[in-house]
Amino acid sequence: MKHVLINDSIVPEAEAQVSYKDRGYHFGDGIYEVIRIYQGAFFALDPHINRLFDSAEKIDIALPFSKQELVDRLNVLKEKEVVIDGSLYVQITRGAAERNHLYSREEQPILFGFTLPDKSNEANETNGISAYVTEDIRWLRCDIKSINLLGNVMAKRKASDHDCGEAVLYRENAVTEGSSSNLFLVNNKTLYTHPANNLILNGITRQEIIAVAAELGIDIVEEPFPKEVLAHADEAFVTSTSIEITPIHTFKGDVEATLTLGPITKQLQQALKKRIKTQTSASV
Amino acid sequence: MKHVLINDSIVPEAEAQVSYKDRGYHFGDGIYEVIRIYQGAFFALDPHINRLFDSAEKIDIALPFSKQELVDRLNVLKEKEVVIDGSLYVQITRGAAERNHLYSREEQPILFGFTLPDKSNEANETNGISAYVTEDIRWLRCDIKSINLLGNVMAKRKASDHDCGEAVLYRENAVTEGSSSNLFLVNNKTLYTHPANNLILNGITRQEIIAVAAELGIDIVEEPFPKEVLAHADEAFVTSTSIEITPIHTFKGDVEATLTLGPITKQLQQALKKRIKTQTSASV
Repeated sequence: MKHVLINDSIVPEAEAQVSYKDRGYHFGDGIYEVIRIYQGAFFALDPHINRLFDSAEKIDIALPFSKQELVDRLNVLKEKEVVIDGSLYVQITRGAAERNHLYSREEQPILFGFTLPDKSNEANETNGISAYVTEDIRWLRCDIKSINLLGNVMAKRKASDHDCGEAVLYRENAVTEGSSSNLFLVNNKTLYTHPANNLILNGITRQEIIAVAAELGIDIVEEPFPKEVLAHADEAFVTSTSIEITPIHTFKGDVEATLTLGPITKQLQQALKKRIKTQTSASV
Repeated sequence: MKHVLINDSIVPEAEAQVSYKDRGYHFGDGIYEVIRIYQGAFFALDPHINRLFDSAEKIDIALPFSKQELVDRLNVLKEKEVVIDGSLYVQITRGAAERNHLYSREEQPILFGFTLPDKSNEANETNGISAYVTEDIRWLRCDIKSINLLGNVMAKRKASDHDCGEAVLYRENAVTEGSSSNLFLVNNKTLYTHPANNLILNGITRQEIIAVAAELGIDIVEEPFPKEVLAHADEAFVTSTSIEITPIHTFKGDVEATLTLGPITKQLQQALKKRIKTQTSASV
């Protein structure tokens, strides 16, 4: 039987209830994280917990538990669910209240966590995917990992309807990120990606890749670039907790181009896999 | 005992359950309407129902019921709850599914409805409110009445923290609307408001006021105007289903100004009240 985490309790999924007054349900008034589990160990747990607390602060939710208390609860859920390879989803909404745009700061935040099965992405990591280039219609606080994700959802569906595995977004012609990933380009052996400002979500995998690239001596430029640059890239890939480093072999939509799966992408993939293995082995 | 509407059933509030897999809860993947009830009758029911169906189409939700079936269900809830003066809130989420940005079009949409008590706004309608002028950080599809409302929620809280009853938003210096209302200015006896494009929610009350103003022979200009114009307005007011026509006596924040409650606002208030009375009396 599947169990989920609600606040400080582990309950059978069948008993898991959400109040219809939960502000997550009326306003998308909440935040979340997806944390990967490899061989029974969380990967990059601390950065995810830190970002969750940062997101809470950014939307003015005062959390009624410490980071360590949250980690303890997530560990209990992971052990209860016996996850070897998979992910843990955790979200915090502002709480249940009579519907009103204006929150009172008296609400009791609601913590909800559940595990997600391992979805193998190996074929995509090896062969690459097509990406659909389309306008970024999201809000101006994409740095907050909130559950206001309708713009992302619409872009992802549009990509899929064009036989693409991901959408690559641009705002005022500058490429921002994917609908649920960050985007990197390689040109002349240099790595390019959008800076971590209010227009993108600063992915934990993005940060890991920047660290890995630095270790490998690969130059990194964190600057906006126009979407036309996508057509001339030597290599391109998207990154996230779920898809790690997934190469792009074709751009469709507002940019059309075919790319080869290149050596720097492969080098980074191997280095990230190694980093994951080292860190998760150490923490078991 | 309070009852709520879930799909085609009226259930006691205590038995109302939302699945934690509801996409409304993970992605804000849903739409809503708030419909006012005066003296036991819905006001402007058809425009609200039409907009809800439009919103559904815009986010690619295929509704499993007709407009008339929805109206029938809302009427059953209204009668069950014996609402004389108040509002009915209705939302539709895409359905419950394993968490995935990519929806499948196989989801079963979930209809949820409940009544809200009458919150008298008379004092504000008579005396006016302060409005906090701040940047519009929302997405580029504000024409969809979706439950992705975190940007609105943040603006409303910021306004309240500055002792203002509403936030007035501007994007790239052009005034768009309030955080849960539309904004109108009066200058030289002409009414100004942002055009109904992707940057604002085309309020039903906004549309009623435009109709009323036309009847009264008041000129209306639906064009964007810079926020500096707020400081020189003869009159200003915000409008919504909940607050009808509420004058603004003070702008704070990025524009500072004091306004008088002027004759055109009062004329429109009276005409709207009359229109509401005529329509709701006729439909009882």
